[in-house]
Amino acid sequence: GTKKSWDFMRTHDSVSVLIFNTTSHCFVLVKQFRPAVYMCEWERTKTQPCEAAEKTEEGASEAVASGSESREDRADAEGGSSSAWPPAATGITYELCAGLVDKPDLSLEEIARQEVLEECGYDVPASKLKRITSYRSGVGVTGSKQTMFYAEVSDDNCVSAGGGEPREGELIEVVKVPLHEAMTFAYNERIPKTMGVIFSFIWFHNNMSPKYKISTNV
Amino acid sequence: GTKKSWDFMRTHDSVSVLIFNTTSHCFVLVKQFRPAVYMCEWERTKTQPCEAAEKTEEGASEAVASGSESREDRADAEGGSSSAWPPAATGITYELCAGLVDKPDLSLEEIARQEVLEECGYDVPASKLKRITSYRSGVGVTGSKQTMFYAEVSDDNCVSAGGGEPREGELIEVVKVPLHEAMTFAYNERIPKTMGVIFSFIWFHNNMSPKYKISTNV
Repeated sequence: GTKKSWDFMRTHDSVSVLIFNTTSHCFVLVKQFRPAVYMCEWERTKTQPCEAAEKTEEGASEAVASGSESREDRADAEGGSSSAWPPAATGITYELCAGLVDKPDLSLEEIARQEVLEECGYDVPASKLKRITSYRSGVGVTGSKQTMFYAEVSDDNCVSAGGGEPREGELIEVVKVPLHEAMTFAYNERIPKTMGVIFSFIWFHNNMSPKYKISTNV
Repeated sequence: GTKKSWDFMRTHDSVSVLIFNTTSHCFVLVKQFRPAVYMCEWERTKTQPCEAAEKTEEGASEAVASGSESREDRADAEGGSSSAWPPAATGITYELCAGLVDKPDLSLEEIARQEVLEECGYDVPASKLKRITSYRSGVGVTGSKQTMFYAEVSDDNCVSAGGGEPREGELIEVVKVPLHEAMTFAYNERIPKTMGVIFSFIWFHNNMSPKYKISTNV
């Protein structure tokens, strides 16, 4: 009934972090297989000819092949076309490093700091996290509050490969997007991504690029 | 069980529209009471002292009072503090005009056009809708695809007060944000809004302001 559905919808607030590596002049994103996105695309293939969706995702894999291992992608490209299921790459999205606010004793900055370490392998103090802004996400479903941070890291801060906590079911690939490709990446609709990626890249372009006199390709 | 939850999570793709009125040089947003946001804040008052959340929302109401009727807001400010329930204003968000893609025979542009008419009262041809970009929303829950459009309207296109379809349960207030206040609005965290509002205002600033030689307050 209604109550059960509501219980399911409740989610925690969340934090997300735009990470910029000042050594390599790259943004650090996470690439994740999202079951909800995959099922959404699977539904689409049942109601539409599936070629359009597949073509889109293959294009996306190519576009970012330089920045990722893309082992799964290649496997899909080889074996996927004869299957009734869309290739696994269909469920992949590029996202900001992010996490749920599920530890009431920690500040948002401390939670964000933990996610940067666990997901992307950079150890930076919470004090280095700059708050960008906050907003409501999924207002029709969860209505939770998201707070976005900016973190500058360097190769010296890199202490592990990241990738999330396998025991928490996370399967995360760390992906770097060179600054000079960032705006092309942001507006390339063939690359599946969240609005947080697009917004934060543009925020950086407007607010950080002038400061550092870094040229972006807008 | 699992299946039932999944059925509930499934949502349609959606469209959203940044509307700019060239007569009044205002953005046209919708202001909605969102049950999910309200319940989220109500949960917060049970686990935290509630003053912080209430203060935030009252500030938001003040900040945009010039652009809205704020009848409900004022009623809450008068009667809300003695109640165990957070004021109704707590559940309000400012959003882009938006709607679900639930009519397979219509193009995204045509669905967006209908939403602009029903929610905001402007009658513009679908051909005037400019596609901004698309992205994944709620990747952890629904994974649906959202496509964002830009629509320029004038007072001549205004054919009704908008407000949505009451028989569909919509309770929407049309709100205008003057262009010269847009960037302050976008980054004012006391005004509850979606990321779509923030992103699209900045997109306009970067892509449309130069074209029209309109100055925004960044």
